[in-house]
Amino acid sequence: MEKYKRNERIGAIIKILADNPNKVITYNHFSEKFSAAKSSISEDVLVVKKIIENLEMGKVETVSGAAGGVKYVPVISDREREQFLEEVSAKLRDPGRIIQGGFLYYTDVIYMPDIVDKLGRIIASRYLSEKVDCVVTMETKGIPVALMTAKYLNVPLVIVRRQSKVTEGTTVTVNYVSGTSSRISTMSLPKRALQKGSSVVIVDDFMKGGGTVKGIIHLMEEFEAEVKGVSVLIASKEPEKKLVEAYNPLLVMDRLDVDSSQIRIQPYKA
Amino acid sequence: MEKYKRNERIGAIIKILADNPNKVITYNHFSEKFSAAKSSISEDVLVVKKIIENLEMGKVETVSGAAGGVKYVPVISDREREQFLEEVSAKLRDPGRIIQGGFLYYTDVIYMPDIVDKLGRIIASRYLSEKVDCVVTMETKGIPVALMTAKYLNVPLVIVRRQSKVTEGTTVTVNYVSGTSSRISTMSLPKRALQKGSSVVIVDDFMKGGGTVKGIIHLMEEFEAEVKGVSVLIASKEPEKKLVEAYNPLLVMDRLDVDSSQIRIQPYKA
Repeated sequence: MEKYKRNERIGAIIKILADNPNKVITYNHFSEKFSAAKSSISEDVLVVKKIIENLEMGKVETVSGAAGGVKYVPVISDREREQFLEEVSAKLRDPGRIIQGGFLYYTDVIYMPDIVDKLGRIIASRYLSEKVDCVVTMETKGIPVALMTAKYLNVPLVIVRRQSKVTEGTTVTVNYVSGTSSRISTMSLPKRALQKGSSVVIVDDFMKGGGTVKGIIHLMEEFEAEVKGVSVLIASKEPEKKLVEAYNPLLVMDRLDVDSSQIRIQPYKA
Repeated sequence: MEKYKRNERIGAIIKILADNPNKVITYNHFSEKFSAAKSSISEDVLVVKKIIENLEMGKVETVSGAAGGVKYVPVISDREREQFLEEVSAKLRDPGRIIQGGFLYYTDVIYMPDIVDKLGRIIASRYLSEKVDCVVTMETKGIPVALMTAKYLNVPLVIVRRQSKVTEGTTVTVNYVSGTSSRISTMSLPKRALQKGSSVVIVDDFMKGGGTVKGIIHLMEEFEAEVKGVSVLIASKEPEKKLVEAYNPLLVMDRLDVDSSQIRIQPYKA
């Protein structure tokens, strides 16, 4: 007689997999946790796979062999992605969001945990089949979405800062030029924050001219890192020519028309 | 004949609840999603509750009535909290983490999504039974743990910044004095980032003198906010007298002894 019923094991396996996206959990782990035979766990996992995939909650991959296990791959369906990005766009089209000077206030949206969790999952989906060692972002506003992307990829987050800190040891600092204001700024990363030769994904909240991301790419060169991709939440339509050639925006925004209170922002269509 | 088997409904309900901590999901929502009678869903939820609570993964609360529903309360057990904080302390005791000048390098640990997720859950556990409107932190290093705390409380994150930004509209700026260096700095928050009269929890990564948190408390007064609590990841033992009286640290660190390479850091015991 097994200690837990099948129902209970299945529920618990789903909870554990959902808490550990993109990470292989061994059959042994479940077998010990539930005092159940590995053959029972194997059967449970088949049911788990069916549940997750039928309800379009992602994929479940099994790894066979002695050290076999199971992995929850949090890939999002096209339908869910498009629907969610349209919802977010609609929220951002509220004319009350227009700030003097022609800016869009969107901080509240990207600091809301459930929204940013899903945005991170959407970005991560793009890189789930690649070897990525970490997600890199620049402080401050991009941190929440970059952290959630890192969570779904199951890799560390690396945060580049505007100033180097004495509390972090030796740092590498590069200068960069903001694409729109032509002002020169610096960005820093402690040497111990990133292993040489890592594969990274760059995530940021907003891209106008592309100067910040270009700076991060330059900084990555100093760490001999390979940039596997650049994802941004919102890209402004203008300037059309950006300092970075390859980047993936989730949303695209036209120039704000402050007089007519029109905000044109929509999901990016490739 | 119902469209999904009980097994499948239970698994899916667990996934949905786990993805939405501290949020009431109505029986109607599940009933429609699974094309199942509300009575079936009620029975499913009882099984879900048993699974989650038997495996010490948190609690499941049901709300009765016409708009009835179910909520996953991600409270963590004392045993799990203590064990996890001891694991994190052990990681931080690595002498390789000592930085010239007598600092401890811990950024990598608090930027690791799975670690910071659990730290956020531990902090949130403390406030789950209170009415909290948002989690407030100061940029930069505290953002990941503050975001995860906000996620488990199901409330927005608010990030106080060192400088005010033109892109965020009218801001409130206060001066504060670092408790240890006596340097005067400023911190800012856009007016629209926080509704007057909110109840907030302050979360930060490190507290030495307490100057930063005291500054945030002052800033909160300008927003007529009520501070329900202050939680920090690491508090230094010295100075014993801090500028803030009531705060809850997860870990406590003695002064670093650079010569002997000794790092004394351990879970805080009340």
